[in-house]
Order: sequence, then C-alpha cells, then structure tokens
Amino acid sequence: MSVFAYEIHATDGAARTGVLKTPRGDIRTPAFMPVGTAGTVKALYMDQVKETGADIILGNTYHLMLRPGAERVKRMGGLQKFSTWQGPILTDSGGFQVWSLSKLRKMNEQGVTFQSHIDGSKHHLSPERSIEIQADLLGADISMQLDECTAFGCTPAEAQASLELSLRWGQRSKDAFGSRDDQVLFGIVQGSVFEDLRRQSAEGLKEIGFDGYAIGGLAVGEGFEQMCDVLDFTTPHLPVERPRYLMGVGKPIDLVEAVARGVDMFDCVLPTRSGRHGQAWSDYGPINIKRAEFIEDDTPLAPEIDCPASRDYSKAYLNHLFKSGEYLSAMLISWHNIAYFEHLMARIRAAIAAGEYEAFRREFRAKWDQGIAEAATRSA
Amino acid sequence: MSVFAYEIHATDGAARTGVLKTPRGDIRTPAFMPVGTAGTVKALYMDQVKETGADIILGNTYHLMLRPGAERVKRMGGLQKFSTWQGPILTDSGGFQVWSLSKLRKMNEQGVTFQSHIDGSKHHLSPERSIEIQADLLGADISMQLDECTAFGCTPAEAQASLELSLRWGQRSKDAFGSRDDQVLFGIVQGSVFEDLRRQSAEGLKEIGFDGYAIGGLAVGEGFEQMCDVLDFTTPHLPVERPRYLMGVGKPIDLVEAVARGVDMFDCVLPTRSGRHGQAWSDYGPINIKRAEFIEDDTPLAPEIDCPASRDYSKAYLNHLFKSGEYLSAMLISWHNIAYFEHLMARIRAAIAAGEYEAFRREFRAKWDQGIAEAATRSA
Ligand SMILES: [Zn+2]
Ligand SMILES: [Zn+2]
Repeated sequence: MSVFAYEIHATDGAARTGVLKTPRGDIRTPAFMPVGTAGTVKALYMDQVKETGADIILGNTYHLMLRPGAERVKRMGGLQKFSTWQGPILTDSGGFQVWSLSKLRKMNEQGVTFQSHIDGSKHHLSPERSIEIQADLLGADISMQLDECTAFGCTPAEAQASLELSLRWGQRSKDAFGSRDDQVLFGIVQGSVFEDLRRQSAEGLKEIGFDGYAIGGLAVGEGFEQMCDVLDFTTPHLPVERPRYLMGVGKPIDLVEAVARGVDMFDCVLPTRSGRHGQAWSDYGPINIKRAEFIEDDTPLAPEIDCPASRDYSKAYLNHLFKSGEYLSAMLISWHNIAYFEHLMARIRAAIAAGEYEAFRREFRAKWDQGIAEAATRSA
Repeated sequence: MSVFAYEIHATDGAARTGVLKTPRGDIRTPAFMPVGTAGTVKALYMDQVKETGADIILGNTYHLMLRPGAERVKRMGGLQKFSTWQGPILTDSGGFQVWSLSKLRKMNEQGVTFQSHIDGSKHHLSPERSIEIQADLLGADISMQLDECTAFGCTPAEAQASLELSLRWGQRSKDAFGSRDDQVLFGIVQGSVFEDLRRQSAEGLKEIGFDGYAIGGLAVGEGFEQMCDVLDFTTPHLPVERPRYLMGVGKPIDLVEAVARGVDMFDCVLPTRSGRHGQAWSDYGPINIKRAEFIEDDTPLAPEIDCPASRDYSKAYLNHLFKSGEYLSAMLISWHNIAYFEHLMARIRAAIAAGEYEAFRREFRAKWDQGIAEAATRSA
C-alpha cells in the first residue's frame, strides 16, 4: 500500500540501515530530523541544515496553524516553498503541543478545542482537521495521525483508555488521509510503560495499516532505562519492512541505544535549544562553552566534522560570543550541534553497514559515561 | 609618509572613487564598513559580510577592551584571527563609547577613567593606551586617534577647547603610533558646527600629519541639513590625496549626500540594528517587515541584489519570522541590509566612475523623498 519504498540495506542485530524513498528526496536511515518548529530550524539557514547531512526536517502543526496559519501557508505555496526547505518534511499532528503548550483544552471523542498560547484565540483539532492541515495545507511528505499523548505515571487503565482513543483517531486519520500518490501517513504506538498495552497498540495500528510506525509517549519523564525497556518490548511488534520513528528523542546516547533496538527515525529540539544556551554536543556529552577553561582555548569544537561551525571557530571565540549575548553564538553552536547529530547518524549508518554496530555502541557508551562522570567531578 | 597607497581613479565634482591599498586587501572607495562591535557583525557570518562586497569592517576598542580584553585578543592571535575576518579592520579609539556607554567617567588632560557598563570594573583610556590596544593588541590595519567627541549644542568656546584637546591627543596618538610598515593612523576633525573651528581642527591635524582624516562629532543630533553644511565647509580643508572618513554615518541618503561632498569611507550600526528590529533598507527608505501588507507578499526584498537574503526569501516569510521572534528574521534582514548598503556603495562608485554622480544623487534623492512621503501618508 505504501508509495514510499523503504529499502533496508543492512541489519546488525535489531539495528537497520537503509533508505526511505520520497518524491522530494531520499532519507538515509537511521535518520535524525532537525526540528523546524515555525518553518525555520532555529538560528540556521536551510542550506546549512541540508549541508550537515539532514535529509528531512520536521514541522510543527500546532505552531504553524496558529502562526502564520495553515491556510496562509497553503496560499504561499506550501511549507516547503514558504520556508525554502527543498527536501521532504514530516509534520507532527499538533496533539503533543496542544497538551504541552496550549491553554484551556477541552478534549472529547471528536477532538480537542484549545486556546492559542500566543494570543488566546480559540482553535480546534480533530483527526480530520490535523490531516487537512498537514497533508493538504502544509503539504507534508509524511503526516502523523492525531493521538493522545499518554502522561507518564498514569495507571494501566488510563493508559488503555488513552491508547484505544488513539487507535480510533488513527483509523479516522487514515480514512481522512485516504490514498495518495506522493504523501504518506504514520501511526503512533502508545501504551505508556506497559508491555501488553504497547503490544495491543502496535497490533491495532498494523490492522489499520500505516506507511510507518512512530513510538509516542516516550521522553516524557520515564528516564533512560525505562525508555530502553519500552523499546525492547515495542519494536518487535512493528512491521520490519516499514520505518520506525521514535518521537521527540533525544540525547546522542538515546539515539545510539534506540538504533540498537530497531529505531529508524528521530527528531528532537535538543541540538538547537542547547545551541541557544551555549551547550555544544559531543561524544562525551554536552560542553558548556562558557566554562572558564575555554576562555583562551583556540581549538575548535570538533575538527573532524566537515562543518564550518565545528571546525573553523575557536572555543575562545565561542566563549566570548556566548558571554557577549551575540546572535552568532546561537548560530554557530546550533549549527555545530545539528552537524554533530547528523555526523553521529552517518557514523551509526556506517557501523551498521559494516556489521560493527555493537562495538560502536559499546565504545560510544564508554565515552559518554566517561564524559558524564567527568562533568559530575567538575560540578562536585 | 603613508604606507597605504590611496589611488583615486575618478572624480566627479567633489565625489571621488578609488582604492585604498592595504596589506590585507584593497578597500574600494567610497566604502561602507559594517560594524563588528564585539568581534562579530551582529547576526552575520563573516563570509556573508565579505560576499556582500564589504572590503573592511570596523571593530570597537571600547567593547573589546572590556570583553574579552585586548591582551586576550592579542594572545589569541589578534582580532582578525580571533573573529575569522580575513580582510582589513579599522578600529575606533574607544572614546566615543566611553562617552556614550560607560559610567562614572573622569576626564583630564591625561585621558579618561571610566567604569565598564558590563560589570562596573574600572578602566583607563589615554591616547597612548588606545593606540596600544588598537595597533599592538587588536592588530588593527587602521587605528583612530583618541579624541573628545564634542557634544552637539555646545558653545563655540567649548567646541574650541575640546578640539584643541583632541589636537593634543592627536599628536600624542601619532607619537605613540610612531612609524609602522603595515598599519596606519587616522586623525579626527572636530569643531562641532562651526566653520572656523572645523578649519582650525583640519589645519592642526594636517600639521601633525595622518594617513587619513576622519570627520567626527556628526550624527550626534545636528540633523541632515546641518551635517551637509559641516561637510561642505570641512572637506575642502582636508588633503585631497588621503581618504576621508565620516564616522558613524548613516542612512542611505546621508551616504549619497556625503559622497557628493568628498567623503570616502563610512561606518554605521544602522543596517544590523535595523535588521534586528525588522526594518529592511531600500532606496525608498526603511521597510517595516511587520506591516500587514506583507503577510502574504511572496516577493523578495530586492531581487536585483545578488544576495540570498535580498533575493530568495519572500516578504511573507520574513513577516512571519519577525512576528514569531525567530533568529532567522534578524539574520536575514541584517544580511539584506548589509548587502543593500554595499550594493549602494557599488552603484555610487560606478556613478562616479561614469561621471554621472550628480544625476545619480538627484534620482536617489527623488526616490528617497517619495518613500519618506509615502511612509508619512501611511502613518497619518
Ligand atoms: Zn526532544
Ligand atoms: Zn550610525
């Protein structure tokens, strides 16, 4: 049924590497999607994003429907043309941000009414309206079903009721989406941290039939170990032949471990958000550029990464820019972070292709743990 | 005496076009120098600045001596290496910012002591220390003498006392600078709006002998007409064979009119400051990108300018970015503004070379006045 062929070129344990074919370009997997919330990957130019190796970006339905408005984006030629991003775009359904950002939500079987966090204006989101916004108005290559993001810490009964609502909304999303030649729709697995519920959700979605399967409701406070546990018992229930997308994740170590559990796609605001706060990512964890040791450090963040931000600017200069509150600080560190994440994905893909993923994972983990331990020593 | 040859290729009335030769590259004149206050032209990459056609940027002694510190910049290899700007740099003396930004100034014949506006720390600036910072520590290609920026509205007696102090400081700056193979020093004409005082200042500076002559104490509240008057009676007293630099100016119309009066170099924070406030410059004056008429305007700011920011982004997108508070708004509009200013300088140089500067000036002035009149109608 799917129009986007997913070619898996190599597997290594549960890890897979391949290419998701789209009319707007190939997506090499495992893939990290930079987040372009409001039609811009914050503090980067789109050609920089592309040059880091990103094949696809994410757009936020919630933000774009409020400003500039989905109908307006459509009149301006769709999100690609409006934002100047040339490649494929995945949009989220808007559900997660309605829960986390909006005011005065009123939810029922039909959908959710809410007030904009920007100006208090009233809006409505239903499975059908979300598909209309994503696929028809923004023109997303990959749309996501509307779901209810189950809160961490809920009871099994609450999680079950929630995933069943998400399944009904998944069916309605599918019906509204229909069949399209050049766009696809992903379903979202819920079920909190409960193994039987995750399986029930996955089975229900497979019955409906989607072009890809996302794992939702993680990175919401459950912690690293429990996230790994949920992946361990969830990905085996997802079709091997379709892409698997872990939503809103995460730190570099999360990506490395989730790939080992069969995940193909990721998105996270972390690289750009950290970039604005003077945090540069590395295999050893985050580097706080304002630390005194960098004041006269004339080495770059990561000379091995083929990105000007990683290679051509001294830590001393970045330290100065950050302390001076200069735009260029956020611009350079966000750019480095996106380049670091995309470079990491390239290393992950190469390790899987070479059949050396377990060694890669173990080495990465050792460096990461070392970095975290050193950071703890510094702050102790 | 000067090591930087100034070749004047064409003149048209009082206007001149040529090339100031420096060891770090040619400066085509009339030249607009983007301001890189703290070692960065705000919200731009240095290669963008270069590609707009800027041959030289300005660095601020006051900001850099406070943060990261002039000795530190020296240890990091000088301002060019530290900031990644490859071309020549002109630094101001720090005097103007001490007057406009610092707290608790104490001025005497020797120099000025002041408190940092950043952290209240105490600093000293004298003609000798300013030269040390600019020429020895930052490594400026063009240093400026320390002067006292005479306030607008002062009496002739105050202006005279002030210009005489500036002359004595000019001599001390020259003595401290000595003779150098690859760096030059400019003097600064003061004298407020008084013709005889401007002449006295210019004659005094010529006796000391500088490599270039700046006109200071303008753009401090005197207004457009009076600025033109001062230029009219000041530039004739400056040596024809050396560059003339009008400090801190200005709007596009100011540049056009000052060139007609024999000015060769300019600097101003206007293009980048406006860029952060959603104002894009044009021949018709500033364009407020947040105006409702741009919400669905899919045309770019200036397709005739060979700069991505001017050519490849719709006003609708810029309007959206500005209203959303996105970094990319300041990044793109500042970039367009620098490109617009540099493009204007290129048109100015071409018009002088073609012997058509008076026609260019008149046409520009007509468009400018039309734009200002239309803006007044809109806000009425
Ligand atoms: Zn995230
Ligand atoms: Zn100015």
